[in-house]
Amino acid sequence: MSVIRIAGICGSLRRESCNKKLIIRAQQLCAEQISEAQLDIIDWSQLPVYNQDLEDDPPKSVLKFKEEIADSDAILFATPEYNWSIPGPLKNAIDWASRVKIGDHGDVFAGKPVAIIGAGPGSYPGSSGSGRAQLILRQTLVVLNMIAINSPSVMLTGAFEAFKEDGSLKNGVMEEKIVKLLKELVISHKRLKSTI
Amino acid sequence: MSVIRIAGICGSLRRESCNKKLIIRAQQLCAEQISEAQLDIIDWSQLPVYNQDLEDDPPKSVLKFKEEIADSDAILFATPEYNWSIPGPLKNAIDWASRVKIGDHGDVFAGKPVAIIGAGPGSYPGSSGSGRAQLILRQTLVVLNMIAINSPSVMLTGAFEAFKEDGSLKNGVMEEKIVKLLKELVISHKRLKSTI
Amino acid sequence: MSVIRIAGICGSLRRESCNKKLIIRAQQLCAEQISEAQLDIIDWSQLPVYNQDLEDDPPKSVLKFKEEIADSDAILFATPEYNWSIPGPLKNAIDWASRVKIGDHGDVFAGKPVAIIGAGPGSYPGSSGSGRAQLILRQTLVVLNMIAINSPSVMLTGAFEAFKEDGSLKNGVMEEKIVKLLKELVISHKRLKSTI
Amino acid sequence: MSVIRIAGICGSLRRESCNKKLIIRAQQLCAEQISEAQLDIIDWSQLPVYNQDLEDDPPKSVLKFKEEIADSDAILFATPEYNWSIPGPLKNAIDWASRVKIGDHGDVFAGKPVAIIGAGPGSYPGSSGSGRAQLILRQTLVVLNMIAINSPSVMLTGAFEAFKEDGSLKNGVMEEKIVKLLKELVISHKRLKSTI
Repeated sequence: MSVIRIAGICGSLRRESCNKKLIIRAQQLCAEQISEAQLDIIDWSQLPVYNQDLEDDPPKSVLKFKEEIADSDAILFATPEYNWSIPGPLKNAIDWASRVKIGDHGDVFAGKPVAIIGAGPGSYPGSSGSGRAQLILRQTLVVLNMIAINSPSVMLTGAFEAFKEDGSLKNGVMEEKIVKLLKELVISHKRLKSTI
Repeated sequence: MSVIRIAGICGSLRRESCNKKLIIRAQQLCAEQISEAQLDIIDWSQLPVYNQDLEDDPPKSVLKFKEEIADSDAILFATPEYNWSIPGPLKNAIDWASRVKIGDHGDVFAGKPVAIIGAGPGSYPGSSGSGRAQLILRQTLVVLNMIAINSPSVMLTGAFEAFKEDGSLKNGVMEEKIVKLLKELVISHKRLKSTI
Repeated sequence: MSVIRIAGICGSLRRESCNKKLIIRAQQLCAEQISEAQLDIIDWSQLPVYNQDLEDDPPKSVLKFKEEIADSDAILFATPEYNWSIPGPLKNAIDWASRVKIGDHGDVFAGKPVAIIGAGPGSYPGSSGSGRAQLILRQTLVVLNMIAINSPSVMLTGAFEAFKEDGSLKNGVMEEKIVKLLKELVISHKRLKSTI
Repeated sequence: MSVIRIAGICGSLRRESCNKKLIIRAQQLCAEQISEAQLDIIDWSQLPVYNQDLEDDPPKSVLKFKEEIADSDAILFATPEYNWSIPGPLKNAIDWASRVKIGDHGDVFAGKPVAIIGAGPGSYPGSSGSGRAQLILRQTLVVLNMIAINSPSVMLTGAFEAFKEDGSLKNGVMEEKIVKLLKELVISHKRLKSTI
């Protein structure tokens, strides 16, 4: 059986993004602990702001983004929370990729397993660790017809102080949750490919 | 008393956008029927995709966008619905404007009245006329600390066939709702300025 | 292979409830067109308002409700929309059944496929046909760790005029959607039982 | 000027409910620090599960509940979070009170200021302190046409360990937030009564 390809999509473009660190850590954990899967982080930094008028002559960055998603078996989102909601840039990327009429690949999301992780800097009572953004993202995953993993929840609070120098998380339980979530993606993918 | 300035923000960049038509119609109705208010539609088409790294040397388009919002007394959003949620481009614009550290104007949203209208092409049972996007937008308005008008709901379904050639809406009741909503913005602004 | 048992839970207690009619119609369609599944509508009308203090000596109605859910392979909710949200009575029933410490059956929801249908009386532009309630219900299904079917959407508007005298729906497409949704429940159940 | 009457509605019926403790503390803080307002906690424990068929001969508990809300100038909800959402019992109470055709009082919610506080037992990363329930409650407040206070957020995590023996909160900042929220209710009420 060929390796299961998970496309990692980080919701922040910032160089020092804690969500970038989180998904890079997920990538390392996948490489170390899940031999049957491979997590590739997709670069969508060149996408313009979505405008339907651009669809007639779609930007190469859009075609490339859709192609990389089409080539994957499952998706992992790492999302910050902006203004109690999904970040505009991440939603913009999803909106581009969801346009079936652009390029050779039609619906690149439908039917694929998807999981969400996320991090936020706050660590006061009620800090959501991106939880509100994750819930809003889930609503979009329904209409994209993706198979969303429910659990475990990976909501990292106090994200600026959460990583060791080597990129691992100080909180080992959080790392175990990430591995568990990736394994759930793998199981979900296998179920979808199984004969029923 | 000086005229009340409403900043109109359309959630779609598309030339033939039905939400653009809707907010232009709202502008006309405001000019015709509400003498104490003026609706100016803000152009945010030059905003890049948000990236916190750009804040150190913020794009002029961001400074201009924040300034135009700062100069307004109230906000009117016209939002499409993309993938059962707020459009990425609109959320991207809001995220930019919400960054208090950029430019001379700090928090340009807080304390201002805000209303939402929206349109969608669908006209089948369950077409939301942007309703799902409006609800998700409302969640962000809470943390922006804006005074959101509750009613009437302006959710235009079948938007491609909804306008006459002169730009007015075939459905007169919908036009009355828009006027009512604008009047509620005016009342809300006056309340905020009243002595208590 | 034994028949797949779907537990139908109607969100309204009203005698003439249009959601009751809808789930009864789903039951008929299941009987007629899906030989491998059986839809049983659960009566939860005797449940009291939830109060944790009652858990020590749980009402028989609660034990019976949990048992009937435990005996099922999948769930079908038919939900009205009350005040742009999930009906209090339906959420109350779900809250009762979710309490793992009551009775012999622990977690009766986790891991089961679930689908949602819903109806509302409105038929004006923007009538959601219970769509807003369905989205809020979906949020709870995540934490209940259920496998929620994404599509097709069954949101019946104009529900008072939607049924023929024999209980079938005037709109044949809506009936096809219901059958499709039930088949998706069956497929989802089979996937969960398959060897991977 | 007469005292401003705030009706407190606690979302849990449990005797030892931490939300009950929270709203009782809000009542004390109101009495001590806000001379122009009075917080009365409404008892809705006798409400049955909502059923529209009961509206023809409405239970006395419903009439009494609607009357007490009608007599108030503003509302304060204290809500737990059940299954990532509004508690069924609280939504049930709101649904009852929202039925305009029952009893002498029509729409008892519309136009009134409303604030939300809430508590939850969890204190792990991502504990919402009722935050998810609060967001879902807000959606209903829109269609009830209430004036919802945005800020400050009162989301109490680790609620079982949060109170001193005298009923005050160990976290003084949280108490200040509650007082601020109550003052915002008062300001909002005054604005609504001001001449514009």
